[in-house]
Amino acid sequence: MTHSLLLPRLDGDKPREACGVFGVFGHSEASNLTYLGLHSLQHRGQESAGIVSAAADGLHSHLGMGLVADVFGREEVLRRLRGTAAIGHVRYGTTGESHIQNAQPFTVECREGAIGVAHNGNIVNALALRRRLEKQGAIFRSTMDTEALVHLLVREQAERFEERLASSLAQLQGAYSMVLLTETLLVAVRDPLGFRPLALGRLDGAHVVASESCAFELIGAEYVREVEPGEMIFIDENGLRSERPEALADTRAGRCVFELVYFARPDSLVFGRSVWESRKAMGRRLASENPVPADIVIPVPDSGVAAAIGYAEESGVPFDLGLVRSHYVGRTFIEPQQSIRNFGVKLKLAPVRAALDGKRVVVVDDSLVRGTTSRKIVGLLRQAGAAEVHLRISSPPTTDPCYFGVDTPTKQELIASTHSVEEIRRYVTADTLGYLSLEGMHTAVKNGDGGFCDGCFSGAYSLPVLSEVPNHRKRLFGG
Amino acid sequence: MTHSLLLPRLDGDKPREACGVFGVFGHSEASNLTYLGLHSLQHRGQESAGIVSAAADGLHSHLGMGLVADVFGREEVLRRLRGTAAIGHVRYGTTGESHIQNAQPFTVECREGAIGVAHNGNIVNALALRRRLEKQGAIFRSTMDTEALVHLLVREQAERFEERLASSLAQLQGAYSMVLLTETLLVAVRDPLGFRPLALGRLDGAHVVASESCAFELIGAEYVREVEPGEMIFIDENGLRSERPEALADTRAGRCVFELVYFARPDSLVFGRSVWESRKAMGRRLASENPVPADIVIPVPDSGVAAAIGYAEESGVPFDLGLVRSHYVGRTFIEPQQSIRNFGVKLKLAPVRAALDGKRVVVVDDSLVRGTTSRKIVGLLRQAGAAEVHLRISSPPTTDPCYFGVDTPTKQELIASTHSVEEIRRYVTADTLGYLSLEGMHTAVKNGDGGFCDGCFSGAYSLPVLSEVPNHRKRLFGG
Amino acid sequence: MTHSLLLPRLDGDKPREACGVFGVFGHSEASNLTYLGLHSLQHRGQESAGIVSAAADGLHSHLGMGLVADVFGREEVLRRLRGTAAIGHVRYGTTGESHIQNAQPFTVECREGAIGVAHNGNIVNALALRRRLEKQGAIFRSTMDTEALVHLLVREQAERFEERLASSLAQLQGAYSMVLLTETLLVAVRDPLGFRPLALGRLDGAHVVASESCAFELIGAEYVREVEPGEMIFIDENGLRSERPEALADTRAGRCVFELVYFARPDSLVFGRSVWESRKAMGRRLASENPVPADIVIPVPDSGVAAAIGYAEESGVPFDLGLVRSHYVGRTFIEPQQSIRNFGVKLKLAPVRAALDGKRVVVVDDSLVRGTTSRKIVGLLRQAGAAEVHLRISSPPTTDPCYFGVDTPTKQELIASTHSVEEIRRYVTADTLGYLSLEGMHTAVKNGDGGFCDGCFSGAYSLPVLSEVPNHRKRLFGG
Amino acid sequence: MTHSLLLPRLDGDKPREACGVFGVFGHSEASNLTYLGLHSLQHRGQESAGIVSAAADGLHSHLGMGLVADVFGREEVLRRLRGTAAIGHVRYGTTGESHIQNAQPFTVECREGAIGVAHNGNIVNALALRRRLEKQGAIFRSTMDTEALVHLLVREQAERFEERLASSLAQLQGAYSMVLLTETLLVAVRDPLGFRPLALGRLDGAHVVASESCAFELIGAEYVREVEPGEMIFIDENGLRSERPEALADTRAGRCVFELVYFARPDSLVFGRSVWESRKAMGRRLASENPVPADIVIPVPDSGVAAAIGYAEESGVPFDLGLVRSHYVGRTFIEPQQSIRNFGVKLKLAPVRAALDGKRVVVVDDSLVRGTTSRKIVGLLRQAGAAEVHLRISSPPTTDPCYFGVDTPTKQELIASTHSVEEIRRYVTADTLGYLSLEGMHTAVKNGDGGFCDGCFSGAYSLPVLSEVPNHRKRLFGG
Repeated sequence: MTHSLLLPRLDGDKPREACGVFGVFGHSEASNLTYLGLHSLQHRGQESAGIVSAAADGLHSHLGMGLVADVFGREEVLRRLRGTAAIGHVRYGTTGESHIQNAQPFTVECREGAIGVAHNGNIVNALALRRRLEKQGAIFRSTMDTEALVHLLVREQAERFEERLASSLAQLQGAYSMVLLTETLLVAVRDPLGFRPLALGRLDGAHVVASESCAFELIGAEYVREVEPGEMIFIDENGLRSERPEALADTRAGRCVFELVYFARPDSLVFGRSVWESRKAMGRRLASENPVPADIVIPVPDSGVAAAIGYAEESGVPFDLGLVRSHYVGRTFIEPQQSIRNFGVKLKLAPVRAALDGKRVVVVDDSLVRGTTSRKIVGLLRQAGAAEVHLRISSPPTTDPCYFGVDTPTKQELIASTHSVEEIRRYVTADTLGYLSLEGMHTAVKNGDGGFCDGCFSGAYSLPVLSEVPNHRKRLFGG
Repeated sequence: MTHSLLLPRLDGDKPREACGVFGVFGHSEASNLTYLGLHSLQHRGQESAGIVSAAADGLHSHLGMGLVADVFGREEVLRRLRGTAAIGHVRYGTTGESHIQNAQPFTVECREGAIGVAHNGNIVNALALRRRLEKQGAIFRSTMDTEALVHLLVREQAERFEERLASSLAQLQGAYSMVLLTETLLVAVRDPLGFRPLALGRLDGAHVVASESCAFELIGAEYVREVEPGEMIFIDENGLRSERPEALADTRAGRCVFELVYFARPDSLVFGRSVWESRKAMGRRLASENPVPADIVIPVPDSGVAAAIGYAEESGVPFDLGLVRSHYVGRTFIEPQQSIRNFGVKLKLAPVRAALDGKRVVVVDDSLVRGTTSRKIVGLLRQAGAAEVHLRISSPPTTDPCYFGVDTPTKQELIASTHSVEEIRRYVTADTLGYLSLEGMHTAVKNGDGGFCDGCFSGAYSLPVLSEVPNHRKRLFGG
Repeated sequence: MTHSLLLPRLDGDKPREACGVFGVFGHSEASNLTYLGLHSLQHRGQESAGIVSAAADGLHSHLGMGLVADVFGREEVLRRLRGTAAIGHVRYGTTGESHIQNAQPFTVECREGAIGVAHNGNIVNALALRRRLEKQGAIFRSTMDTEALVHLLVREQAERFEERLASSLAQLQGAYSMVLLTETLLVAVRDPLGFRPLALGRLDGAHVVASESCAFELIGAEYVREVEPGEMIFIDENGLRSERPEALADTRAGRCVFELVYFARPDSLVFGRSVWESRKAMGRRLASENPVPADIVIPVPDSGVAAAIGYAEESGVPFDLGLVRSHYVGRTFIEPQQSIRNFGVKLKLAPVRAALDGKRVVVVDDSLVRGTTSRKIVGLLRQAGAAEVHLRISSPPTTDPCYFGVDTPTKQELIASTHSVEEIRRYVTADTLGYLSLEGMHTAVKNGDGGFCDGCFSGAYSLPVLSEVPNHRKRLFGG
Repeated sequence: MTHSLLLPRLDGDKPREACGVFGVFGHSEASNLTYLGLHSLQHRGQESAGIVSAAADGLHSHLGMGLVADVFGREEVLRRLRGTAAIGHVRYGTTGESHIQNAQPFTVECREGAIGVAHNGNIVNALALRRRLEKQGAIFRSTMDTEALVHLLVREQAERFEERLASSLAQLQGAYSMVLLTETLLVAVRDPLGFRPLALGRLDGAHVVASESCAFELIGAEYVREVEPGEMIFIDENGLRSERPEALADTRAGRCVFELVYFARPDSLVFGRSVWESRKAMGRRLASENPVPADIVIPVPDSGVAAAIGYAEESGVPFDLGLVRSHYVGRTFIEPQQSIRNFGVKLKLAPVRAALDGKRVVVVDDSLVRGTTSRKIVGLLRQAGAAEVHLRISSPPTTDPCYFGVDTPTKQELIASTHSVEEIRRYVTADTLGYLSLEGMHTAVKNGDGGFCDGCFSGAYSLPVLSEVPNHRKRLFGG
């Protein structure tokens, strides 16, 4: 008997980023640039990809399930996406909701004309808004939070579009880094607390926005700055202008620290900080908080690499690569029958016996969620001869789910929500287990101004979450 | 140099049916039956297919581009479509609009709850409705005419759902044979003039509806009757009830005669008539109107078979099969380079030299649209040795496009709109060319009551068409 | 629970042709013509397809599993098959042997240089030859009978290639219509009894050969004549020459009558006879041998059409089309669960109730093999209202398997090998059942010279068959 | 205008390994283990994959183009490969020869019975053998060197199979690590100089062989030892026995040093050495030979990682990760039009600006072949702000092609064959360029016994190569 499994991403039981967005205005190759930008943001969402472009003859759209390279794999597709402005989106959904109906950017035609919208984040009052709007006659075609925004927008009466938009956005509670595209205008907005990153850049006189600066590097654009929390940026043929409406002002701040811990690409700047530097700093701090006599420091590749280098620097224990990552993961793989199965982690990570044999090993990972993968990794290292295995996590214990755009396990599934560090250590069978402290993490990301949301580590979300967030998605599609 | 072409369907330049719909309520295998029903209706649309099912936990939907067997080709897909009621849809769109966004049944969530809608037809005032609704704040997600209906519905204030629906439908002008599904209710409606067919059947105590009765044959259901023009049928756990609201009453009638001429499957009943018998009757009448001394009568397979048998019966000229249809059409085929290309028709139809050589041949087709295929067929027959080729068309000259759910060429492309029969005969290089008369066609379909729309043959549509139907689809997606 | 089935071809339980071959020499578009020729011969084999071309720089080959249009579906493939000569092959194998290793034309490099070989037929002494050659040191790479020929060829010592080839061929017993290609020469040969057809044609000064003349019609080539049994035709830059070596002379004749009954395309000439005319003649004879009072004569489409027309002509009973064939067969189709399954025949054939209801129906098929499909068809006709169903088979009872290139069921599976006509009638539930007599069949195909093998109907094969033909294929690949 | 390119592997212009082999005897899950073993060896060949298993009912084979997970992606495939012994193969061929005919293991049926063969290496006298064998009547079906072996084998007259095999192998000159499988026997052999690795292991009483020990790690097998150069290992139901025939004895040694430099997986043992340790030792030696004042040492991931860690250790310059490798390479990617193209390297490697900006960077790669990729990498680093870029190569200049199983560029394409180190430095625009010395490399791999072939670095091949190796493959398939 055999069964099929999708080779999980290496960090398969890590929280998953929900989306990445990209936008460009004023470039003759707008859709090509968006395509490349989305490729750079692929780590933020692998389920679906889409681009909407704006030309004189209207908006042009192409969406599909799968990776950017697959969805846009036929050359005529990009050619059809005419025009000098475009927005794009990559999405990561849970299996049950992998409907093409939920792919973005979505497009509507309404009183405002044709609009394309791409959204990264999560609106916590989406269900309440939806129910209220439905009572007013609104019709929803998807289960996407974002659809509510357009319904709010067309109900606004203010004269200026900017005001109507600000007033609509002000009714949303939660996380949104969003780009909107009409035939003549690109808009980039970020929620008042700034949960998700959004960067602004320039290329050959054109303006570009992207979830992370790594998208700028690929296309040769220059990083300018973050789009600020609560800021609306409007780009049209007259250039760029920024508005900071009062309705979107908030004294709180909610930058998602997990972007720096795990999500963002190490070569990116997010929230104006280098991800790579932040992770190395976490690793250094982790070493000073959790020292242990050891022979080598190794990362869980690739997510633990930067922190492990930092740990090695600070501790003086030599850095090495005790686990090799397969180049051939990410494909469907038939796992043979019972007696020789359970290859999940071994198919992705191979221990380097020569590096490990007889050694006292510090293994560094960025986070520990359910504990199952860590347990397997510790086992692999021991089988390969490690004399001692010291697990070090470059973030605090993950105790709470995220409501702001990250797809986390439920609180029950988070091992740290119900187990002490010592209990977790026993479960993962490590000799010692050390987490970075909450304070240490904030220090490492230079959070002098308290601008981060660390709710998944502290339960103290930057924005109140309803005690119960009903899964309204069940109602329409039932699963 | 080579280029790729999609092997056209045999009747590639014929008008194309736009859709087929199916619905079932009260059967434990609702989605399986819908799947089979759609397979029977595949000739009405090959571009996309979809099913929405209703279970206690909500509506479940699956849509995809391609044939029914492909879209539902993985077994888990049908299993996921739980519940005892379901609706389905097959669609034929033009290439430019082959967006998954336009696949049906589409689903919405609104004040009425979750609703799935599948539509066959065309709403001629869709653009005007859309513009009016947009001004009122409606947001459209697709270019489908049908989306307007739901916007109208949620704006209605009557107490009873039936009244709200009737009042909404009354604002639509055009052709609609439609099924709607909520968690507890299946609705089947037909426009006041009854352009498109819609049949009602029973299976094991369950109720079924389908565009054509051939879907009933496959699943073993019993044909009950047509859903009448202007009738709304509601099926729920209390059984079936019919309403004939005043708002949908109309003295005119618009059954599409082209359904009987070409679209519908020959084994179907549509408009309460046998398609096969109607076509044979057209063939008989064609023979009496257009006799010619000949040795054999052959059809253009498969669309001309029934009429050719009728022609042979009436004329006494022996029926034969002078053209053989390939079993392997319908796939992408690389056509080799210039000097030996133009195999279009020959790849699909092969002349039987032994049957044709030296013979005076009557060749019967159901309609003649652009004339290009007929010209090639006449050429094939002559090359295979036919001494004379007499082309007989079992319908009148096609002079006008359809606005009621059929995808026809423009008036300019219809050869009969600008050429006399003699000119067409010269173009297709036949020895003689004879069409069925308008009167003859109506006699053949037993149209005693004037209940058919023959606008594509007469220009006299059963319902007025705006002098200009702007292609509003251009606005949103631009192509 | 669901399970997957491949929608069987309409004549799914009919014997299956094993192969079709094509060759061309002296044309600048040799591989393009071969591609088109194979498309015309697709009915002779749908499992694999291949082309070998000959250019100054050697032989070029492309093989693949699937239909011609799929295997050669990327334009660069045909472009790579350079040269002015080419041969091609389509193959139908049983599922267990669907190895790409058995696809043809196969190519070898040996003392004779590079050779490509495409074969239609079956060598009955293949296993003995193989064992003898293996003892001599021959190495076999496939389970194909044809591989033995090349081993024989390189062991021949005669000076002239023609003599070496003749001497090798003389050691083969069985059926072979074969084309061979070297860098400078195309050879077409047919076994001494001429089991399988092979036709010779001309196009623009080039020579072409094909299993059936329908391939000539498509590419515009002219039919010249049959390659004669025991004839070797050599085509090179000096033109065509024929040899009739003594070693290949045989007084017996073995043209496969089943080619005319079922296999060949109706628009083809095979064995110098029109398939269409032969089938109509069988139908006429069937009517005179098995008359019955009836209202309509209908064919089982498409294989029974010609005979049904002949039957109608002779009997005076009107021809009609009571069964409609689906355009969408031939694809994988998920069949839903138990309670509504067994759609096999209904998915492919739909009865026309209006044509059948209350009628006494004669239904004509070309052959009856296992009886299961006939039983289902009779059932379908009765459900659709037929008052009487009279099954007529335009060939004699199929009592014996074929050993000469046709993939038949075993003798045990052939219902006529163990049941009387009356028993078969009861099994298929027909009111009457009539077969064409053996004598009648021979009369219909104008077999004045006794030149046909009718072993599958008579057990009297034109060539002796070993009492036991061991399935040597089992040895190498075991399944 | 766009064009399609296959996203090259990160080390796209590196020499490519030609094959990997695997074998197992005496395990109830033989084909499952082989499948997993091949997955571990995937880096040695991505073009085709195949498995042959041996059961009581014969050999069973499945081959296909593509990755192991794709070729064996349907569960029934592995189930069909019954038996308790199996061999497998992964292959990397050049595009022009990507014929399924050349996939391995290939199977033959001959005097010895049915045999499956899987080969890693290259036979330098293959053409001469082939021509000689053809004169003797041998027939070749492929362009694979290995086919000659079986022809030699069946010509041998010695009584014992072992002697016939040894005598056949002795006629081959070149590199071969090979596994053969009959219904009852598994044979593993390695050429007298031992160019390619081959390891022996044990699992649950079964014997396993594999190109690299990483395949043992995955399936939980224990590494036993190398198969020795010139050794033949026979495994059957009586167990394992080894022969070291005189005919295969050779005083020379030819272990491919490039296996340690680049090919083998870092977690493998090859030639009894740890690849990871060898590479770190090369890095350390590289540092001592080519010191430079710098701020960070970074690898070109992933091939340069081990050497870079060694370099950092030895030099004391901190190790960092200045280049991030994309997880989404290896797929076809449409590259947009001219003005923004040439993303080749940037799509795969992203510089970490924060780590590089203003730094003096040592970047370590394992080898430098054409120089084009190195030039792009140096450019990337400078654009990301590196103040100085010092390129270090952990092997000597690659001056000569390989004839022993590695697919290298021609001598003309090897930049070091025609340019001095200083010229290469200027071409790649590095501030300094340092290679590991030949002597240093040998020291690092602990080559005390002179057992390695370093022909690609020295031109002094362990085995003489004909001045001209004609590409005989051209003859049969012409391209």
